[in-house]
Amino acid sequence: MTPLPFGMIGGGLDAFIGQVHRRAAQLDGTARLAAGALSIDPKIAKDSGAAYAIDDDRAYTSVDEMLERESARDDKLGFITIVTPNHTHHPLAMKCLHAGFNVVLEKPMTHTSGQAQEIADLARDKGLLCCVTHNYTGYPMVRHARELVRSGAIGDVRKVFVEYHQGWLATKVEDEGVQQAVWRTDPAKAGLGGALGDIGTHAENLAEFITGLRIESLCADLTSFVHGRELDDDAAVLIRYTDSMAKGVLTCSQVCVGEANGLAIRIYGTQGGITWRQEFPEQLTVSPLEGSPTTLSRGADGLSEIAELSTRTPGGHPEGFIEAFANLYLGVIDAVEAQRDGREPGLLAQAIPTAGDGVRGVRFVETCVASAREGGKWVDLDPA
Amino acid sequence: MTPLPFGMIGGGLDAFIGQVHRRAAQLDGTARLAAGALSIDPKIAKDSGAAYAIDDDRAYTSVDEMLERESARDDKLGFITIVTPNHTHHPLAMKCLHAGFNVVLEKPMTHTSGQAQEIADLARDKGLLCCVTHNYTGYPMVRHARELVRSGAIGDVRKVFVEYHQGWLATKVEDEGVQQAVWRTDPAKAGLGGALGDIGTHAENLAEFITGLRIESLCADLTSFVHGRELDDDAAVLIRYTDSMAKGVLTCSQVCVGEANGLAIRIYGTQGGITWRQEFPEQLTVSPLEGSPTTLSRGADGLSEIAELSTRTPGGHPEGFIEAFANLYLGVIDAVEAQRDGREPGLLAQAIPTAGDGVRGVRFVETCVASAREGGKWVDLDPA
Amino acid sequence: MTPLPFGMIGGGLDAFIGQVHRRAAQLDGTARLAAGALSIDPKIAKDSGAAYAIDDDRAYTSVDEMLERESARDDKLGFITIVTPNHTHHPLAMKCLHAGFNVVLEKPMTHTSGQAQEIADLARDKGLLCCVTHNYTGYPMVRHARELVRSGAIGDVRKVFVEYHQGWLATKVEDEGVQQAVWRTDPAKAGLGGALGDIGTHAENLAEFITGLRIESLCADLTSFVHGRELDDDAAVLIRYTDSMAKGVLTCSQVCVGEANGLAIRIYGTQGGITWRQEFPEQLTVSPLEGSPTTLSRGADGLSEIAELSTRTPGGHPEGFIEAFANLYLGVIDAVEAQRDGREPGLLAQAIPTAGDGVRGVRFVETCVASAREGGKWVDLDPA
Amino acid sequence: MTPLPFGMIGGGLDAFIGQVHRRAAQLDGTARLAAGALSIDPKIAKDSGAAYAIDDDRAYTSVDEMLERESARDDKLGFITIVTPNHTHHPLAMKCLHAGFNVVLEKPMTHTSGQAQEIADLARDKGLLCCVTHNYTGYPMVRHARELVRSGAIGDVRKVFVEYHQGWLATKVEDEGVQQAVWRTDPAKAGLGGALGDIGTHAENLAEFITGLRIESLCADLTSFVHGRELDDDAAVLIRYTDSMAKGVLTCSQVCVGEANGLAIRIYGTQGGITWRQEFPEQLTVSPLEGSPTTLSRGADGLSEIAELSTRTPGGHPEGFIEAFANLYLGVIDAVEAQRDGREPGLLAQAIPTAGDGVRGVRFVETCVASAREGGKWVDLDPA
Repeated sequence: MTPLPFGMIGGGLDAFIGQVHRRAAQLDGTARLAAGALSIDPKIAKDSGAAYAIDDDRAYTSVDEMLERESARDDKLGFITIVTPNHTHHPLAMKCLHAGFNVVLEKPMTHTSGQAQEIADLARDKGLLCCVTHNYTGYPMVRHARELVRSGAIGDVRKVFVEYHQGWLATKVEDEGVQQAVWRTDPAKAGLGGALGDIGTHAENLAEFITGLRIESLCADLTSFVHGRELDDDAAVLIRYTDSMAKGVLTCSQVCVGEANGLAIRIYGTQGGITWRQEFPEQLTVSPLEGSPTTLSRGADGLSEIAELSTRTPGGHPEGFIEAFANLYLGVIDAVEAQRDGREPGLLAQAIPTAGDGVRGVRFVETCVASAREGGKWVDLDPA
Repeated sequence: MTPLPFGMIGGGLDAFIGQVHRRAAQLDGTARLAAGALSIDPKIAKDSGAAYAIDDDRAYTSVDEMLERESARDDKLGFITIVTPNHTHHPLAMKCLHAGFNVVLEKPMTHTSGQAQEIADLARDKGLLCCVTHNYTGYPMVRHARELVRSGAIGDVRKVFVEYHQGWLATKVEDEGVQQAVWRTDPAKAGLGGALGDIGTHAENLAEFITGLRIESLCADLTSFVHGRELDDDAAVLIRYTDSMAKGVLTCSQVCVGEANGLAIRIYGTQGGITWRQEFPEQLTVSPLEGSPTTLSRGADGLSEIAELSTRTPGGHPEGFIEAFANLYLGVIDAVEAQRDGREPGLLAQAIPTAGDGVRGVRFVETCVASAREGGKWVDLDPA
Repeated sequence: MTPLPFGMIGGGLDAFIGQVHRRAAQLDGTARLAAGALSIDPKIAKDSGAAYAIDDDRAYTSVDEMLERESARDDKLGFITIVTPNHTHHPLAMKCLHAGFNVVLEKPMTHTSGQAQEIADLARDKGLLCCVTHNYTGYPMVRHARELVRSGAIGDVRKVFVEYHQGWLATKVEDEGVQQAVWRTDPAKAGLGGALGDIGTHAENLAEFITGLRIESLCADLTSFVHGRELDDDAAVLIRYTDSMAKGVLTCSQVCVGEANGLAIRIYGTQGGITWRQEFPEQLTVSPLEGSPTTLSRGADGLSEIAELSTRTPGGHPEGFIEAFANLYLGVIDAVEAQRDGREPGLLAQAIPTAGDGVRGVRFVETCVASAREGGKWVDLDPA
Repeated sequence: MTPLPFGMIGGGLDAFIGQVHRRAAQLDGTARLAAGALSIDPKIAKDSGAAYAIDDDRAYTSVDEMLERESARDDKLGFITIVTPNHTHHPLAMKCLHAGFNVVLEKPMTHTSGQAQEIADLARDKGLLCCVTHNYTGYPMVRHARELVRSGAIGDVRKVFVEYHQGWLATKVEDEGVQQAVWRTDPAKAGLGGALGDIGTHAENLAEFITGLRIESLCADLTSFVHGRELDDDAAVLIRYTDSMAKGVLTCSQVCVGEANGLAIRIYGTQGGITWRQEFPEQLTVSPLEGSPTTLSRGADGLSEIAELSTRTPGGHPEGFIEAFANLYLGVIDAVEAQRDGREPGLLAQAIPTAGDGVRGVRFVETCVASAREGGKWVDLDPA
């Protein structure tokens, strides 16, 4: 089993999320970062290549050069990960797909749902993979939650409460040189949504992932609490789901002082309820209609197969964010290898978030913004 | 210091909340249940009187008789507590006030805000007290939270998340003889709101109590998840506050399987955030803009005076629901005695929820229902 | 059902624990404080009597007078509660019993096990009740834990970890006028044990109460961490139990900065484990050998009868320290009335801690001190 | 920066802890598994080599061959990790050191302290590194706790409670083919201690690491609760520390049903207390003598430099067991490179547990066993 070579666009030494992707993709020794256009700054691109143990001639300073040269190789890259700011997702993903590469793409997928759909269509037409990194779905207990809900353990879903609360944008840090904040609060780079695009899409996807429900309509109230900020830093969204009595309340905010990365979901059905919190990701609480709440822990006996496949250490030896991210990559690697080898992909490959998820994410942002612009009216989500 | 005699309407041996009122009012030995019309069933009325150590001739089987006879006594009742179902609040409160008695009234105050305002007006005109038992404001750490917020410890409030989630109405228990459920799900007795009136009003009041904010407008989505139930058993409400940038998200539900009495509030301001959960009422978490979250506990040194006055045992010796309720009664008793003695009421008396709170609670229900009936439109709350 | 009249020795307005007893005994309206020798200071005795609504002529300034006068009454006191410092327990309890009164006694019962045994013997000979207030056994979930363990739910007990950690004596507060500290750190008043007598006895009793195990031998390390303090303010005790493979680790300390009233117990058997914490008394975690941990909450369906009898409010409406204490009193009242009425006492009466528990508590202290004095040798507990 | 090549003895595909070492050492791209004698089974050795992307000619089937061939290379291995059962630690470590390789060794270091000292002496004489993987010291918040304690934030340490409770050996799983259990319960392979050696040494080391205290004497009670098991599966140890008033209570057990990997430590000093739990490793609670407890989280502002150097993701993006382990490897790699480059090692290198820690760990086990064999006498720890 030779590790699958892959490439990366963005993610140089000065980028947070790039480090996560690199560590996650290589965590299990099943993939190897072999090429990259790691920065638009040539020096950072070269230095990052060296630091990442990429051969010097594959540490490119131009995406076009990378795609051209890598396309010509026999040991072709299994996939290319794109971890640049939002506004570059669309052109870069299109290029990679046109060049015949599978793509792993950060969320939110694009600025507009039209762009997102273009990517999805191109991937489909080319028979290529496009994974959008809704990485929180990689947590074993999230995956187990999905199995539980889909197996009917909590009956028909009635109510979803999903929240994603952070506090790091409670002051105008984009004016103080915090790079992560600068592009996220700039409409030209971030797109239509601020908190909504950055974290709201994760919340929306998490609810969909676990319940299988699709949004029919929503009513959103968006706020820019910090003076002078153009995009929302807080959003509250009421949701109705398709083909279901289920309703949802989604809140996301980046002005919740004291909150670090508070993604949490609670789902109540006719037969039970479940609760999961990202900051304590190893536990899943399940409350049956009759009887007392049970705390399921990763690594415990009797969890679903997908949860077991997504686990590396025994229970009580905490896994976290990187491991969850790595589970997405295990799925991507398996999908690519299955495609290559002409076999069926395994459970991990089936669990990865796809371009379709990404399209729905962008559409969710667009619909929230449309609702808010009309003063908080109920608006249908385009089901296309 | 002779204990203040008081009376009760409703609250016989077969009623849950009556037991709480009786224990709470008498917990500190500062009041004594001296008279009552404890049940519309004469036998229960009499038996309950005996069990509560009420003199037999003051255990009435009729409210009118009680008011007439008690009015004639020299050792007049300091107040009368009304703990009957919602639809009786208005006539009973009006009678008591007309007869010259101070009144303690369960929430929601009445079916309509017009009725509630009538009571408030009559009390004001007669110079009588009307306390509406938003008992959760009696918790010491809730009171301390109010002091913190009002002192500016978290800066200007931006966002309020308040939720009140229960699970006991997840199935149609009103058809299985659960008395508590029968009247709460019956519009004739409960009024316009189901979960909204029963617990949503507590949530709304808690947010107001701590922040001092008043609702300007709201957008509500109400649901009756259980088939055949007429009133809402779930509500989600987006809120904008008056004279403030602050916004709120209020959710209440009685179909959240696994939740017992999940009232919780999180408030975020420009300088910090606070979190309090009713099921673990002794702790209050405070997160400053700079620095790490601190857990304040009841009984710790350095809490505000009102929190200290509202505490009976040292920290770590848990107080709970009855003690919090008793704090309301301490305030009522002090207010009545201050009135009687012509002195200024103390801090505990100043903290009790009043008829004005009750009026706003009913108006909140009415406005939510109005919003929901228009499919979830934003509606202004009548500020009258 | 007339409330049972009872008396109190000690517990005037200046005493913390007296307030708890008074509130707890009267919480349910089944008993009434009718007489007292509430303080050795005559003014406090009288003022306290008035504040507690005791008739003036039954607010005594002398215990002897109280016992003489009260003995002569027809409406005899159902019991007398003794809440004075430890060194007075023996003479006062003996006097009360000799005068024919049932007794409720604070722990530790006496200074020496000989004294304790004398009380126990006298009560037995006179057919009187002597309840020692190991009040933590009054919590519903502690009582449920006992039912679980005794029913075999966790199999044969192997290991008991019980701890009682406080921090309030971390500095020499007895020199700063903290009254609660003054007598507790004075061997003449507190007896042989400091932390050991004050809280270690509660820990020891809690373990016994739930498991039914009796200590066979122990090895203790006692420390006075605060310079100049004569009695232990910290103790660690290894325990072996009689007729069992079970072993225990008991720690108690009053120098654990940051701990308020940290009594907690974890019990592991061949088939499962349970955990309970006094500061969050409404939950009990049960871990089966197969399957995941379950969180049982007070008020939930399906708890044992004794737990239900010990509960006043529905689940999620927190009960606490006073309510648990009141459960002891419900048992005492039932025992006294059953005795009076010649009927079998109920479950609550059967659950109260007795003189036998108190004797074992004092013996536990003596044995720990003996072990520590020999440098931490294993010493057998006198099973007498 | 080329990744540092390293080797591994043991840790083939069938071994749990080998996977952790491999992932941890390579997590940051600063080291690369280049050679190994991964199993005594030649087929597993070869297959594991392939799976781990080791060149086939460096996937050895014999340790001697590996050491001979690797010694002759120019690109010499930076270190060799030994992850075989305990009884092989001594001969393998001695061989590696004699061959001139730095060594990373699993704990407990050896069967006897004599053997451990031999390794420590040889490493010192040869100027080689010997790191013993007390991996729990790699957690950022443990390292921050050490900084706090050593900076005097909690004053002079009085009391240490450290516990390591697991439940997986509550039944005789070694008879049911659980490989992890088979050698751990076999004195010939595990050594003198069962739970004591396997997890008790981690607990002992953690207390030492944070406080800097050394054990002077101890009193231990060891138990084999499971019938027919030769080694202890439970231990309770009372501890006195050198040059200090401090005392400790250390418990470790593998029969605590429901516990997964419950390592936790609480330390109380004259000025404050701290609490850390391995299963929720991102938080550290600090309680000052005055004021309320604060919860410090990894990634928060203002933590110590060593904590920041030991962190990869922002706060709220959980790191866990593998990341903590990787922090040890970062230190090892830095130490090896600093040695090679003739520069001072950095903070991470200074934090790694050394042979001296390992020696003390074995001595701790020996002393506990000696104490227990004499029925639980206090025994001095050989300070040599």
